Amino acid sequence: MSTLSPQTRAKLETVSVATLCTALFKCGLRNQLIQDVRPLNPAGRNMVGEAFTLRYIPAREDLNPIGVFQNPAHPQRKAVEDCPAGAVLVIDSRKDARAASAGAILVARLMVRGVAGIVTDGGFRDSAEIARLDIPAYHHRSSAPTNLTRHQALDINVPIGCGDAPVFPGDVVVGDAEGVVVIPAEIAEAIADEAVEMTAFEDFVSEEVLKGRTIIGLYPPTNPQAQSDFAAWRKAKGR
Amino acid sequence: MSTLSPQTRAKLETVSVATLCTALFKCGLRNQLIQDVRPLNPAGRNMVGEAFTLRYIPAREDLNPIGVFQNPAHPQRKAVEDCPAGAVLVIDSRKDARAASAGAILVARLMVRGVAGIVTDGGFRDSAEIARLDIPAYHHRSSAPTNLTRHQALDINVPIGCGDAPVFPGDVVVGDAEGVVVIPAEIAEAIADEAVEMTAFEDFVSEEVLKGRTIIGLYPPTNPQAQSDFAAWRKAKGR
Amino acid sequence: MSTLSPQTRAKLETVSVATLCTALFKCGLRNQLIQDVRPLNPAGRNMVGEAFTLRYIPAREDLNPIGVFQNPAHPQRKAVEDCPAGAVLVIDSRKDARAASAGAILVARLMVRGVAGIVTDGGFRDSAEIARLDIPAYHHRSSAPTNLTRHQALDINVPIGCGDAPVFPGDVVVGDAEGVVVIPAEIAEAIADEAVEMTAFEDFVSEEVLKGRTIIGLYPPTNPQAQSDFAAWRKAKGR
Amino acid sequence: MSTLSPQTRAKLETVSVATLCTALFKCGLRNQLIQDVRPLNPAGRNMVGEAFTLRYIPAREDLNPIGVFQNPAHPQRKAVEDCPAGAVLVIDSRKDARAASAGAILVARLMVRGVAGIVTDGGFRDSAEIARLDIPAYHHRSSAPTNLTRHQALDINVPIGCGDAPVFPGDVVVGDAEGVVVIPAEIAEAIADEAVEMTAFEDFVSEEVLKGRTIIGLYPPTNPQAQSDFAAWRKAKGR
Amino acid sequence: MSTLSPQTRAKLETVSVATLCTALFKCGLRNQLIQDVRPLNPAGRNMVGEAFTLRYIPAREDLNPIGVFQNPAHPQRKAVEDCPAGAVLVIDSRKDARAASAGAILVARLMVRGVAGIVTDGGFRDSAEIARLDIPAYHHRSSAPTNLTRHQALDINVPIGCGDAPVFPGDVVVGDAEGVVVIPAEIAEAIADEAVEMTAFEDFVSEEVLKGRTIIGLYPPTNPQAQSDFAAWRKAKGR
Amino acid sequence: MSTLSPQTRAKLETVSVATLCTALFKCGLRNQLIQDVRPLNPAGRNMVGEAFTLRYIPAREDLNPIGVFQNPAHPQRKAVEDCPAGAVLVIDSRKDARAASAGAILVARLMVRGVAGIVTDGGFRDSAEIARLDIPAYHHRSSAPTNLTRHQALDINVPIGCGDAPVFPGDVVVGDAEGVVVIPAEIAEAIADEAVEMTAFEDFVSEEVLKGRTIIGLYPPTNPQAQSDFAAWRKAKGR
Repeated sequence: MSTLSPQTRAKLETVSVATLCTALFKCGLRNQLIQDVRPLNPAGRNMVGEAFTLRYIPAREDLNPIGVFQNPAHPQRKAVEDCPAGAVLVIDSRKDARAASAGAILVARLMVRGVAGIVTDGGFRDSAEIARLDIPAYHHRSSAPTNLTRHQALDINVPIGCGDAPVFPGDVVVGDAEGVVVIPAEIAEAIADEAVEMTAFEDFVSEEVLKGRTIIGLYPPTNPQAQSDFAAWRKAKGR
Repeated sequence: MSTLSPQTRAKLETVSVATLCTALFKCGLRNQLIQDVRPLNPAGRNMVGEAFTLRYIPAREDLNPIGVFQNPAHPQRKAVEDCPAGAVLVIDSRKDARAASAGAILVARLMVRGVAGIVTDGGFRDSAEIARLDIPAYHHRSSAPTNLTRHQALDINVPIGCGDAPVFPGDVVVGDAEGVVVIPAEIAEAIADEAVEMTAFEDFVSEEVLKGRTIIGLYPPTNPQAQSDFAAWRKAKGR
Repeated sequence: MSTLSPQTRAKLETVSVATLCTALFKCGLRNQLIQDVRPLNPAGRNMVGEAFTLRYIPAREDLNPIGVFQNPAHPQRKAVEDCPAGAVLVIDSRKDARAASAGAILVARLMVRGVAGIVTDGGFRDSAEIARLDIPAYHHRSSAPTNLTRHQALDINVPIGCGDAPVFPGDVVVGDAEGVVVIPAEIAEAIADEAVEMTAFEDFVSEEVLKGRTIIGLYPPTNPQAQSDFAAWRKAKGR
Repeated sequence: MSTLSPQTRAKLETVSVATLCTALFKCGLRNQLIQDVRPLNPAGRNMVGEAFTLRYIPAREDLNPIGVFQNPAHPQRKAVEDCPAGAVLVIDSRKDARAASAGAILVARLMVRGVAGIVTDGGFRDSAEIARLDIPAYHHRSSAPTNLTRHQALDINVPIGCGDAPVFPGDVVVGDAEGVVVIPAEIAEAIADEAVEMTAFEDFVSEEVLKGRTIIGLYPPTNPQAQSDFAAWRKAKGR
Repeated sequence: MSTLSPQTRAKLETVSVATLCTALFKCGLRNQLIQDVRPLNPAGRNMVGEAFTLRYIPAREDLNPIGVFQNPAHPQRKAVEDCPAGAVLVIDSRKDARAASAGAILVARLMVRGVAGIVTDGGFRDSAEIARLDIPAYHHRSSAPTNLTRHQALDINVPIGCGDAPVFPGDVVVGDAEGVVVIPAEIAEAIADEAVEMTAFEDFVSEEVLKGRTIIGLYPPTNPQAQSDFAAWRKAKGR
Repeated sequence: MSTLSPQTRAKLETVSVATLCTALFKCGLRNQLIQDVRPLNPAGRNMVGEAFTLRYIPAREDLNPIGVFQNPAHPQRKAVEDCPAGAVLVIDSRKDARAASAGAILVARLMVRGVAGIVTDGGFRDSAEIARLDIPAYHHRSSAPTNLTRHQALDINVPIGCGDAPVFPGDVVVGDAEGVVVIPAEIAEAIADEAVEMTAFEDFVSEEVLKGRTIIGLYPPTNPQAQSDFAAWRKAKGR
């Protein structure tokens, strides 16, 4: 059963991956960013969902002829049909973008099924088509060669590494224009709350800085004036 | 004499590099993608042409003062004047983008001469200008330093490596928004035919998936219903 | 006191980083490009200013809790307040983009203070916001994790390395759509003059090439006709 | 039950990893070498055994305090006790040698238990001590930091990648002074037979070459004289 | 004044870098190993001393002709004469081993002056000669080109990064056959004490394991029997 | 005809690669070291000879079945038979050590033929056997997979890159325990002379340093006393 409440999901849609990384840093978690992936489609909204994982290992030629996809239980195809609506499919491609992790047809199927997004630390083929689909997708770089050239899909929904980050099934995955972060399920609500608070403060600071105020004493608010200004701002803004 | 017929060229303009990679994979060719290059100008049309190659070696300082370009037989300049119209100039820069493979003036000259495109596994200088020219160009990343800083142009139209792919003069080079693939001359026609067939099927599948159909049994079409639906679709579409 | 005159600054706003690299190459300086950084905001104008530097070392966990920013003398925050208007803040992040070199609030403060630009060989967080600010910013790639995760700001305005280039305080830093180059202060005026001359010639050549003229004899102008045509062009254009 | 017969094991002890790679290449398997690992102890004998695998993912700080080893079911410790005598423990460390895959105490325990060897695509701590143990061990480079710094042991005896090679439990793993190769279980006997034949021929060729004979016609034996000389040599040597 | 007492130095000579890394890990310090350096001379004894640092930046050609060494205040030469006896000279070479950090003459001078060792995250020239000197030296790999080719010595005894580890002047540096670790000065004594304790336990465990005892319950000693056996062992050994 | 006189060869046998790099640096040549190769057999003597080159490109599967070696004109086999006695075979393997550049049988044939050495920027298979042969061999790392897995031998005795250095046929190649340097043929004699002089001075300095003398004023000899001491030393030593 899902551990991600609609309330937490809604909060996570309003905060940045950078702010979430800082909130995780305060908890001693320094490696939760999926390093070196970027969005194909710079959407306006955040990707938020629980991790559903797929693990690839290096392809052995005799086990990966083009015919393997005729098996309806092939893990790549099965993952695309089984990933729950609202979840994010996260693929461990061992940071190898020399062959595709998936292509536009599979990503379209995920979109139609209501999946919240897809992430690989390798690359997608048909990247221009994927960029036009209405589902957030993140990869390292485009990769035209068919999946079977380098990857064998092996396991569904086991803990994996993706972009040097640990990803456990059910962790909460959030992506924005900058990247993707993995929040342990147990602390997702607390991190979301903390990030909402931090975002309010950063929005206040941004406004002040653009008006010409120095960051010293303001960011962080070591000057009591900054604290009272922020309190007034929150009241005025209703945040 | 060219081995690339107008018919094959026309077919290759309608299919994706990803599809071509899969067709090559079926023939046992797994390394024909020029890895990790991207288009400077995201054109609407494919780049298609026979490979005309240029080989660089590391620059030795005493052999590469700025004056070398005064020699009209300098291989870089000669290649730009000799590359046939309709061909693609492919440069082996040893995956070294720390100095430019070429700049906007040379690329403009290629465009004016009717060359079909240019590819390097290094980088171009004047990349913003090149992006505005009407000739497809692919590189790893922008690179402002003059060519002579790292590269000595040496050979014209010999077999080379480019982005870890083997490139023989006359091979058929195809590029789209995603990357560049090298098709051995001898099989270009067969690969083009296969890719046209595959594209028809993938277009059918994409439509079905967007309508909500599962990929199981459809992609690949292990379900006889999928096969008959595809036959009907082809008939209706005239493909 | 500034060594960069308004005249030199104006000239440097009209020439490309690529042309400056060639002018430096002619002086025996081959490594002045900050390798592998790109602009977040593809502005229409060049970034020009004297280098004001900030040096990071790897973060030691006990010295870099979130609380360090409460110190108004923290070097990162101090650099942002001290970097002179018209200067460029250049950060040595040891080419490590796994954590942010800075974020949008600090970059906004630099903008408001009239700083000419910011460069890191690591990455910025809040990169989408920075891209919307009216100040040129260059990095290797986006990086959401807070600065303290990997970096400790240590020194202000000492000589540094950035992207494999040496950067001395007061060197003249120029950035365009392609990248960033570092010109030693002592030769900035001479390099600017040389680049203006080269740019006039390259603009002439580009026009000729687009009209269909061969590059042989024209680029470089070993054909006397090319030289006299260029003289006529300059006269006509008043350059 | 073991698929590796004593006869096959004995054959594999007499042939080189390089010869086995060529035999696998003839079967279309090009990626079975565990890339970029080397022996800590240059033993006189080959390491031969069936793969018993251990999978690591990136460590999450809260899940990997020093206390985790108090759990007798911790997968790293369990693998060391469960790996069968005569097998080879192969660890997927995601090619990350920044923290140790294991140390001398665990390797000593494997040795005492009769395990045939240990391989990681990361690094071992206590490498000087491991080098003095009588058990073959292979890694990328020495790595002093404790395992928990970067790795979380997760799975035992599942298919993994190691040094870009696919490794399935039960595959036959062979190591010599040069490296480690993975032979699919189903073809281990055939590959061993082929390699024994190839080794006889290569030993003959080596002797001939050292006597001064040209390689043309000899290696491969396109000259019938070479074939009859080899037949005579085999008879004389009893091989 | 030195913060490293003879007692602490003596203790650090008896423990391994791996054990020190674990002791530091328990304090929350995960990045104190100088990554990817190795000893040129596999000495029997540990290198122990306080860090005296030297910082290099990328060489600018005009500032680094061969004549710079005629200046007796050149930072590289000055560092060699100023590094205190008993200290370790640690060089920040930005992990660039394409040119030498130093050569045999300078290392010999350090040896004669009683310096405890030298470390670079780049490479040494004259590495075969350095390997015969009686002073521990660590680098990434051999590098014949003169220092000036890539490096400009800039600063003496400032905080630096070396092999991704932070190094502050006065930190205690320990090297063994496996690598080099940096212990913050303030905790050097405590870490030394902890490591001596851990070493006693690990020596006990090693003996037991070699006698055939399982690691479960022993390492760590969750079985009370293991604890009482260790107490008896310590008594018997006088440790 | 050879440009390398017996006198120059003899001189080059007595000096180090590091000293040669410095002599080349003085001539403005900064990139003549073959980066990141090491000797398999740490011989007592230098490798010296003129470059005879072999160029590899990435292997295309259909062109590189095991049968290609049956062709006596295969460039790899031909190079081994054609490389002149006294020359050094230098292979451009594009810094790709994932498959072998050559194996022990070919290297043995080169040895028997009187070839002076072999260098690749990739790796050798049968490395333990090669290490026992009486011919200097340099590579990046051991590589068991057969050549055909990644490489297609293409050209003999054309200019190449090897380890980021330019190598022209006939250049003089020198290797010692540390690495391999490439001296342009035209300046080989002058560089040899310069290096012999430098070696005499460095031997004098080493002796003085080991006696306890400071390097300031001695290395370089800015103190006139150092110059007169060196003159006396030369006289006494007859150098």
